[in-house]
Amino acid sequence: MTELLPNFVAGRWQAGTGAGTALFDPVLGTELVRVDATGLDLPAAFAFAREQGGAALRALSYRERGALLAAAVKVLQANRDAYYEIATANSGTVKNDSAVDIDGGIYTLSTYAKLGETLGDKRFLVDGDAAKLSKDGLFQSEHLLAPTQGVALFINAFNFPSWGLWEKAGPALLSGVPVIVKPATATAWLTQRMVKDVVDAGILPPGALSVICGSSAGLLDQLQSFDVVSFTGSAETAAVIRSHPAIVQRSVRVNIEADSLNSALLLPDHPPGSEAFELLVKEVAREMTQKSGQKCTAIRRVLVPEALYGAAAEAISARLAKTSVGNPRNEAVRMGALVSRAQLAAVREGLATLKTQTEVLHDGATHALVDADPAVACCVGPTLLGTRNPDAAHLVHDVEVFGPVATLLPYRDLAHALALVQRGQGSLVASVYGSQPAELAHAAFKLAAWHGRVHLVSPDVAALHTGHGNVMPQSLHGGPGRAGGGEELGGVRALNFYHRRAAIQGSSAVLAALAG
Amino acid sequence: MTELLPNFVAGRWQAGTGAGTALFDPVLGTELVRVDATGLDLPAAFAFAREQGGAALRALSYRERGALLAAAVKVLQANRDAYYEIATANSGTVKNDSAVDIDGGIYTLSTYAKLGETLGDKRFLVDGDAAKLSKDGLFQSEHLLAPTQGVALFINAFNFPSWGLWEKAGPALLSGVPVIVKPATATAWLTQRMVKDVVDAGILPPGALSVICGSSAGLLDQLQSFDVVSFTGSAETAAVIRSHPAIVQRSVRVNIEADSLNSALLLPDHPPGSEAFELLVKEVAREMTQKSGQKCTAIRRVLVPEALYGAAAEAISARLAKTSVGNPRNEAVRMGALVSRAQLAAVREGLATLKTQTEVLHDGATHALVDADPAVACCVGPTLLGTRNPDAAHLVHDVEVFGPVATLLPYRDLAHALALVQRGQGSLVASVYGSQPAELAHAAFKLAAWHGRVHLVSPDVAALHTGHGNVMPQSLHGGPGRAGGGEELGGVRALNFYHRRAAIQGSSAVLAALAG
Repeated sequence: MTELLPNFVAGRWQAGTGAGTALFDPVLGTELVRVDATGLDLPAAFAFAREQGGAALRALSYRERGALLAAAVKVLQANRDAYYEIATANSGTVKNDSAVDIDGGIYTLSTYAKLGETLGDKRFLVDGDAAKLSKDGLFQSEHLLAPTQGVALFINAFNFPSWGLWEKAGPALLSGVPVIVKPATATAWLTQRMVKDVVDAGILPPGALSVICGSSAGLLDQLQSFDVVSFTGSAETAAVIRSHPAIVQRSVRVNIEADSLNSALLLPDHPPGSEAFELLVKEVAREMTQKSGQKCTAIRRVLVPEALYGAAAEAISARLAKTSVGNPRNEAVRMGALVSRAQLAAVREGLATLKTQTEVLHDGATHALVDADPAVACCVGPTLLGTRNPDAAHLVHDVEVFGPVATLLPYRDLAHALALVQRGQGSLVASVYGSQPAELAHAAFKLAAWHGRVHLVSPDVAALHTGHGNVMPQSLHGGPGRAGGGEELGGVRALNFYHRRAAIQGSSAVLAALAG
Repeated sequence: MTELLPNFVAGRWQAGTGAGTALFDPVLGTELVRVDATGLDLPAAFAFAREQGGAALRALSYRERGALLAAAVKVLQANRDAYYEIATANSGTVKNDSAVDIDGGIYTLSTYAKLGETLGDKRFLVDGDAAKLSKDGLFQSEHLLAPTQGVALFINAFNFPSWGLWEKAGPALLSGVPVIVKPATATAWLTQRMVKDVVDAGILPPGALSVICGSSAGLLDQLQSFDVVSFTGSAETAAVIRSHPAIVQRSVRVNIEADSLNSALLLPDHPPGSEAFELLVKEVAREMTQKSGQKCTAIRRVLVPEALYGAAAEAISARLAKTSVGNPRNEAVRMGALVSRAQLAAVREGLATLKTQTEVLHDGATHALVDADPAVACCVGPTLLGTRNPDAAHLVHDVEVFGPVATLLPYRDLAHALALVQRGQGSLVASVYGSQPAELAHAAFKLAAWHGRVHLVSPDVAALHTGHGNVMPQSLHGGPGRAGGGEELGGVRALNFYHRRAAIQGSSAVLAALAG
């Protein structure tokens, strides 16, 4: 039997009482560890976090909490090698892809550590300027943001066991709100280990950070009015969460980050050989293959002018053909595995669905696996699909294949391109490739209402831009409609979710006392 | 048969095809008008608003839309007398109480008209400063707020047919988002008339403002991903709305403003005769009787130091005893009717429930009605309840009686008082009465996390403060937990709900083009 990872709740490590669920190596097929949450006293776990953890965190200032995050960053940095080993074994990712998760998570946490320093020795945030409610200004209204007096429950996705934890925990802990994280079972190991390292270092007050691995059964039942829940995953699970009595009846605040069909758009008049064309081709190939396309932000739809359909298909396919796929332990391999047999089956099923309305421009099945047994390894080559009739092919706007798959779509003019993008019903991100600032700015404004982020790539930032799918902590992460309607990160904006806004109306003397 | 009020959808006035539901005079019992929404083509109505109304509004700048609101304000001011007549007849309110709804609504709309001027000739809002994503600053991230490309559906409460419309429509229309309002049936007449006056004046583009009177059946089914819905009313209906597939599956943004058990708190060391004591007594009596206590923001729980329980009971009761109740057409009357027999029954039922755990300090049944037949009129005198055991009397923290009813609760010390307030599980507003700025500021900070607004009353603002229950457009309206978790008003903050935030990442040249 493999090791059963304990949970950390109510201030102590507690093993589940069940047999546990096994986590596997998606390349070798071997069992790695087991997780289980059976028999945990969840009411006690949530009460401990809410009361002990919350009170201890709220007793600190933003600066002090930022210092705790900075100390956690040091611990995580000291243990990076172990995290890379776990990622290779459990996520099947090559080193560069593990870095997106591990170093991306640590960088994001460090960003919020630094933000704490900026926010200083306060225990609430002031929101905007005071407004006079009497002509003489003796009676005024001022808004403040106070930490919510509850717990933050994170139900996370399998693709970012590190980044998904820290991009949420950083803003929550900095806000003074204790965290309970429930990682996706398939890759829970890395989340559990990182929490363990931080807990064992004794940095955070008791109750500030808990981890529950295994089933999510019963977690939502614990939520009370001042708790918040943040979910990353499928639209189906999001709907289940939104329907839960805690949200429906107790107004528990919920943030959803769900699937979306993100687009990359090459603006008109950038033929093959132009810098914008080459930048699009490079970014599409990179986004399709990074983490085997298992990113919520990955490019799923590629829009190019009709006349460039063939040229774009050829150029992207040529790059994809060079991608070696297989065992991430082999240095020749550029793209590792999907996370599980279940995901492999889902990707194959999704590909079959999309193929009913598309042609195959580059076939992932042609990629021989390096150092991996196709009967065991959850590896699949990158596939570029395409259709010359993007208006009729409704599936490409509706079905997200969560793997190294994208579809090329030709458009007639910019209005047509925007209409096609809009058929995604709201996405996390769109990227636009062009050379004229005014045209890029115009596209950005048009796309803004349907996206949480618009990423503009022009030749002057070819070597500087941060990538279509890469989520920078300075920028909003989330998107409207199908993408779930949530908002994460965006620098200090991330703290809003963990605070309650209140108008304080009083005499100028009272408001001065509040500020002092 | 009384007049059947038509609905205004898809750019034209359309009568329902059913028999209609009658609206009554709650004092005289006479039928006034009828409303009906049977047979309306709701998909066409929503599509017209979303496409025609939305496109026309978004083509304008904030300044231009503000000018439309200013023109609407002029039309409404010109028709004030008609609105007061409708309010007297349909809401049974005395003139001062009608003013809270009518003039409060017009003032709020004019506030957003002026805000449009401030926001200027733009079509989106910039959110904060740009952040450098490359060290040289050539690649940056900036956030903007773009109007959501959908429709705003308002499902409103009976107690504010005017203010409830304009406090929502002002921010929505200023944001460039078309409005469909479904007023509560009992008092839909005033909403319908105000919309009619603005529509007939030809101020707004077709599709910008629609009104549907009668049943809300089918309205939520029309909502799509970029629409928003704003509801004011009971927690039960709020739960139904939150569970609807549009919200659960399509991420339609929802704002809920629900019941709450708002508190008034007299700080320690302010005995009878002190200014703070007298200010509390005056405000409690005013809040209990204004609009017959039919305000979401009205004081329901009054907290005073234990030693002052008797004195506070006596002082508040003495004020209440002077309140003449009855026909609002009689100038001697200070407090008119509840809105309907159904509300009268609900108030009586709620009173009976609370009386199981409280004593009656002032009995509303002792008030003889002026100029009104008790067998017909929906009038009820103000009742002050109290209990010397506020910890055990759980009903007073759970049951809101939506009428002229409040409960006096003694507390031991400030920590006890705050714990009692918190048992409301989140409220719209708390007011605090005291004389020391530091003590008031401390209470405000403590109360902020459970309230959308904290109203601080000290002797220096005795004549200036805007009232516990009065919602100023400059201040946030809404509250966490039981109060629904929503946010309205708060000046420019109200526009957030009608915009989508997006991070725009690009070269400094592109971001400069976007700004210009």
